[in-house]
Amino acid sequence: MAFDPINPPQRLLMGPGPINADPRVLRAMSAQLVGQYDPAMTEYMNETMELYRGVFRTRNRATLLVDGTSRAGIEAALVSLIEPGDRVLVPIFGRFGHLLREIAERCGAEVHVIETEWGTVFTPEQIAAAIAETRPKLLAIVHGDTSTTLAQPLAEIGALCEKNGVILYTDATASLGGNDFETDRWGIDVATAGLQKCLGGPSGSAPITLSERAVELVNSRKSIEAGIRADGDAVSASPIRSNYFDLSQILDYWGPKRLNHHTEATTALYGARECARLLVNEGLPEAIDRHRLHGTAMATGLKALGLELFGDQKYKMNNVVGVLIPDGIDGDGARSAMLNDYGIEIGTSFGPLHGKVWRIGTMGYNARRDTVLTTLAALEQVLRRGGFGVTAGSGAGAALDYYHSA
Amino acid sequence: MAFDPINPPQRLLMGPGPINADPRVLRAMSAQLVGQYDPAMTEYMNETMELYRGVFRTRNRATLLVDGTSRAGIEAALVSLIEPGDRVLVPIFGRFGHLLREIAERCGAEVHVIETEWGTVFTPEQIAAAIAETRPKLLAIVHGDTSTTLAQPLAEIGALCEKNGVILYTDATASLGGNDFETDRWGIDVATAGLQKCLGGPSGSAPITLSERAVELVNSRKSIEAGIRADGDAVSASPIRSNYFDLSQILDYWGPKRLNHHTEATTALYGARECARLLVNEGLPEAIDRHRLHGTAMATGLKALGLELFGDQKYKMNNVVGVLIPDGIDGDGARSAMLNDYGIEIGTSFGPLHGKVWRIGTMGYNARRDTVLTTLAALEQVLRRGGFGVTAGSGAGAALDYYHSA
Repeated sequence: MAFDPINPPQRLLMGPGPINADPRVLRAMSAQLVGQYDPAMTEYMNETMELYRGVFRTRNRATLLVDGTSRAGIEAALVSLIEPGDRVLVPIFGRFGHLLREIAERCGAEVHVIETEWGTVFTPEQIAAAIAETRPKLLAIVHGDTSTTLAQPLAEIGALCEKNGVILYTDATASLGGNDFETDRWGIDVATAGLQKCLGGPSGSAPITLSERAVELVNSRKSIEAGIRADGDAVSASPIRSNYFDLSQILDYWGPKRLNHHTEATTALYGARECARLLVNEGLPEAIDRHRLHGTAMATGLKALGLELFGDQKYKMNNVVGVLIPDGIDGDGARSAMLNDYGIEIGTSFGPLHGKVWRIGTMGYNARRDTVLTTLAALEQVLRRGGFGVTAGSGAGAALDYYHSA
Repeated sequence: MAFDPINPPQRLLMGPGPINADPRVLRAMSAQLVGQYDPAMTEYMNETMELYRGVFRTRNRATLLVDGTSRAGIEAALVSLIEPGDRVLVPIFGRFGHLLREIAERCGAEVHVIETEWGTVFTPEQIAAAIAETRPKLLAIVHGDTSTTLAQPLAEIGALCEKNGVILYTDATASLGGNDFETDRWGIDVATAGLQKCLGGPSGSAPITLSERAVELVNSRKSIEAGIRADGDAVSASPIRSNYFDLSQILDYWGPKRLNHHTEATTALYGARECARLLVNEGLPEAIDRHRLHGTAMATGLKALGLELFGDQKYKMNNVVGVLIPDGIDGDGARSAMLNDYGIEIGTSFGPLHGKVWRIGTMGYNARRDTVLTTLAALEQVLRRGGFGVTAGSGAGAALDYYHSA
């Protein structure tokens, strides 16, 4: 058993994420560690909180990281907010809506769902009717669902939740940093994300933000764990079902109390901080414009190759596009050719779209002109060899024309 | 809001962990990403499983990583094994035994505890009596508890559990890689760890191994999540209460099914793989000998400085030593002087030992002669300036003598 050091092949990751990490993020992650309560470490934690306030567009004090992948952030939010028996409404428009339902059920919630066909999103009227019917404590909805490439507009849903006293949670993993997202203006109580999409980092750290109202709810369930509990410390009658995801304790770890909880994943924090630092330095509006520019160029090129886009394009995320696999083309074979011959990864799909739709991303570090043009050029070659009639130069040409006109 | 790039101060981390990461681990973590199902990625996952079989000393097929800190590994084990109402026995000999009780309670277990004074461990007779009295389904116990610096012998407890049909879980976070640990020979069903102690990496990935019996128990509760469930897929009557920590699904992600679950934290996996690769290349017995050598040198030097060691030294872990803070010395002031004047971190203590005991580690990348001697030399200076009578050169001298004789 003698294995070589890590030496991965060069890949251009143009799927729905994870994508290539920004080299500056990887460099930040190569810095040596400091102690868990070193003044340098707690200062980095405070700076990370401030930087993610900029990314989430919020003034929420409770803006921090959960140590795990984006899914860990979702579960931390839901298990901390949901008490067994709580009514939760989950509007589902793709695979990750099903995940929210799944997690809420495991938290012991009474879950009500409404569904809309993949490739569409909900109208405010549909959401209003479902709220009126189910009277939920919590509404949990995905913002951008990579499975369908669409983003659900949230501003009106936020207003509806506020009017009805409903807590609004949203999963912004796929959208944050590349699409409009306004935590405070839209009235979102809790939002979570991951690094591996528009933030340009590796999976493994989950930024989260909580409104004061959400913090109050979470803190009402606070129980300081056995082993470090002191006289007078909180013991709740309805403690959060998880220790690792107990946001009431995690908030005290990130706050002035510096409660001993997990040992912060320092390297992941270095990376998460750098992801946010780069975005905030670029400016969030500018970063979103960049995603819109390159996402539109990609979509323009794909259409010019003769491909049909999937889903209601009015609601397409900037950073990922679904494209119908043409008749006669072996979808997985073409993806293999892209990967093995050109070193470019594009994505397959889940559930009802599997075998019918490829998903192609332009996000984070890979939201660039060269990645868009290279992908279109390679895809033209693969489609031609697969027997699909394509005009030479059509895809990259249309994208270049778009860049020149934009 | 303009923050500089990450540029942490140089620290020599000689506390109970986290410690400085091996630079080779940080270099591995700076490698660029590949896709989640890229053949290169799944091969790295398989290699990581094989490498951790070497570290855990096991043939368990189910040997993998949980994406989170060491505490995430503990919770994944307990929430996947425990059904609400299950009887769980937790023998507690330090702070992290309390954590096991805490997590088991949040999983809905009927938890029974026995406790022994901090600084001691349990006899097999005490464990046997508690098993006879409580008839648990699961016995959960810490192997090495950094809070007291002691390691609980497990071989006889493994035999007792086997004889009584009890599942044995142990938290080996603090001990693995630096102390004898024999998953298969000792009859341990499930063990979890972290990278930030003897494995020489950053916190953020939790290696775990499960026996066939434990895998059967976990798989009996398997429910494939909504959103990717196909006809005929498992739906359990007693599903695991967590999605993120659902080992039945995580095992399918790491197995030939490659079930879509979380997005593996690739950078953390690169690091975890390198930690194990370095240990396996060194040889586990050799790595443990190295920890014994430097741990003994440190303890010898501390005694020669006139300090008294804490706890039953017969059961001390190789990688960390507790030392009573001498009368008249301000414990936190001395730690600050070590950090601010010499750049060396040593540890404080929890609960009953807080303010009474420092904890000094020699583990992972920092289990070296130069770190031991530098720490002893600096501590001599700090103790002298604090007013503690110390013979010049006594600590480092005794350690050097020990090295020459060892």
